[in-house]
Formats: sequence, structure tokens, C-alpha cells
Amino acid sequence: MIGKLQSQIEFIAEIDKLKNVLRRTSPIGLDRKENSAEHCWQVIITAMTLQEYANFEVDLLRVIKMLALHDIVEIDCGDTFHYDKAASKDLYDNELACAQRIFNKLPEEQADSYLSLWKEFEAKETNDSLYANSVDRLMAFIMNYYNKGGSWKDFNLKLEQILEKNEQIKNGSQKLWEFVQEFAIESKEKGYIVN
Amino acid sequence: MIGKLQSQIEFIAEIDKLKNVLRRTSPIGLDRKENSAEHCWQVIITAMTLQEYANFEVDLLRVIKMLALHDIVEIDCGDTFHYDKAASKDLYDNELACAQRIFNKLPEEQADSYLSLWKEFEAKETNDSLYANSVDRLMAFIMNYYNKGGSWKDFNLKLEQILEKNEQIKNGSQKLWEFVQEFAIESKEKGYIVN
Repeated sequence: MIGKLQSQIEFIAEIDKLKNVLRRTSPIGLDRKENSAEHCWQVIITAMTLQEYANFEVDLLRVIKMLALHDIVEIDCGDTFHYDKAASKDLYDNELACAQRIFNKLPEEQADSYLSLWKEFEAKETNDSLYANSVDRLMAFIMNYYNKGGSWKDFNLKLEQILEKNEQIKNGSQKLWEFVQEFAIESKEKGYIVN
Repeated sequence: MIGKLQSQIEFIAEIDKLKNVLRRTSPIGLDRKENSAEHCWQVIITAMTLQEYANFEVDLLRVIKMLALHDIVEIDCGDTFHYDKAASKDLYDNELACAQRIFNKLPEEQADSYLSLWKEFEAKETNDSLYANSVDRLMAFIMNYYNKGGSWKDFNLKLEQILEKNEQIKNGSQKLWEFVQEFAIESKEKGYIVN
């Protein structure tokens, strides 16, 4: 038993590195960037709290597992700013290699299960993954709204760009997409979105 | 709908403050203290990964919800070092007041549900809460082990103290408690535990 358990503990120690991966956003009102580990915790609570707004029934445990695991690939690849994703054609292959490297520290069945959840999240085809992705996008939006602009200002983003990038929220939750549209317009009026 | 959703979004913004609550441990190998938000993410993955070692069947979704919510009270009360808990008789009342303050930002039914999960975690009576507490204790142990002493050294703790404080792990998982005992002795041999 100890050999198997020890490999699982080593996995838990390995993923600790996610606490050192910085995102483009800051915790609200703080003068530092947030890391992907603390982001993942918050997005899990967001998924729990807003489940009623999903377009369809979701399996919340599967959604949470995806969200807990979805950023682990950043340990090798770093955080990719959502607005830059088109620029990085090799990103998926690199992230897949990282997912395999880290999940393969686990016993085979568990490694396969985690890799499968990670791929499902990335593919955005199932209801659970569509809702998980919607919540992940919404989280970045909320952070920028409460930071009175945040990375919207840092990267000089236009209202249309922000709406275009967040439109995928509707695939998991029409209601959350309506909220984002309303608050994007309010953000523009308040000067959080400059262009 | 927007009024209800807006109160839920305000709750999500409020709990962001947990990213600014520091614990006694550091992320492995990093020269800073970890915050309670990133800790909560890691402990959720630990609960997912080690479920097979629980003494009994657990409802993993309930366990994860408890772990996601359990430290939110630290926003008002700060992190209490496990070895200091006896010193603070008013702690539970203060933490309860914080739980009520923050959860009451949510719609009533959701506030009641989250408060109930928080109380269940604290009471350590149900199987789900016993396993959740075991994993939370184990997490601190793992961090100190991989930090080659960490807060064990900082607070000059003795092997017997460490074993006594961690013995509650057996209430949720006899197997994880056996692991901790074995690794505590190894830690002493390696000099991670000095006394």
C-alpha cells in the first residue's frame, strides 16, 4: 500500500508548483498577481454557487474535479492569457505533454481518469465541461470588474474584444452571459473599459 | 434574477480576501508563506486523490464543498496555528460570526447550506467531516515534510507533539495515520524534526 500511496503523495507535492504560476489578474485590491492555485479554489466555489444558472443539468462533482485539475498544465507551460491563445498553435500539445508528465506520477487508473477529465475540459463538448469553462471565463471577468479594469486596462482591451472573448460563456450558461453583457456595458460607462 | 445573482457574485468577490490570509507553512521550496486560498485548492485535490483510504464510504462532493468553504472564516479571524488552538477559547464563536457574516451575503437557502457544511466540518462527527479533517491535517504534514521541517522547525516542535496533534487523522483514515507515523519517524531521522 505504501508504494501506491507514496506515489499519490508525490503527485500532491508536485502540483504544489502551481502556487508559483502567476496569472495576469490581481486579487481584488492587492498589489500582486494572483497565482493559478488560488484562482482554482475560487473558481470551484463559483461553480458550486452558480450551478443553478447552467443551461442544463450538470454533475457538479465532475465539474469541480475538472476545475481543480484544469490549470495544472501551467506548471510546465505557464499561464496563457486568454486573449493570446490564437498566437500559440503548439500550446495544446505542450499542455498535453505536461498533463501526461504530472498525472503519470499517479497509479495508472487514477492517471487515466485525471487526464481524461483534463481533455474533456479542454474539448468543451460535454455539458459538464461547457459549464466548467463558462465559470472559468466568468471568474476572470469578475476579477477585472472588481479591480475596476484590471487586465482590461493593462492590455488596453476594447469592449468588443471583451464581449467576443467571453461570448463562449453562453454555451454553459445563457444567464451568466446576459449578466456579463450587462456588466460589460456598465464597466465601459464606469471607465473600467477604456476603449 | 439579476438581484439574486448579483448577491452571489458579491459573495464570490468577498471571499477573494482569503487570498490575503497567510498560513504558517510555505509552498514547497518558496520563500513566502502560503495563503489559505491556495491551500484550500490543494487540499481539495488531496481529498479527491486519497478517497480510497477513508475508513468508510464518503460523499466526495460534500467533502470537497466542506474543504472549499472551511477556511473562509479566516477572512475575519486569521489563520490559527493548529498547535495554538487550545489557547483561543473564543475562537469558535468568532469564526461562527464570520461564517454568518459572509455566508449571509448569499440567498437564504444557499447561506444556510454553506453554514451547515461549515458547522459539520468543525464538529467532526459525520464521516464526511472526519475524512475532510483528516485530509486537512495530512496536508500540513506533507508540506512540512517536503519543506524539510517547515513550521516544525520554526516552532521547535517535538516528535511527540506532532504525533499527538496529528493522531486525529486516524478518525477519518487509519491508513493515512499509519503513513504519517512512518513519515514522522523518518522526518526525525532526517533531521526535519529536531526534538
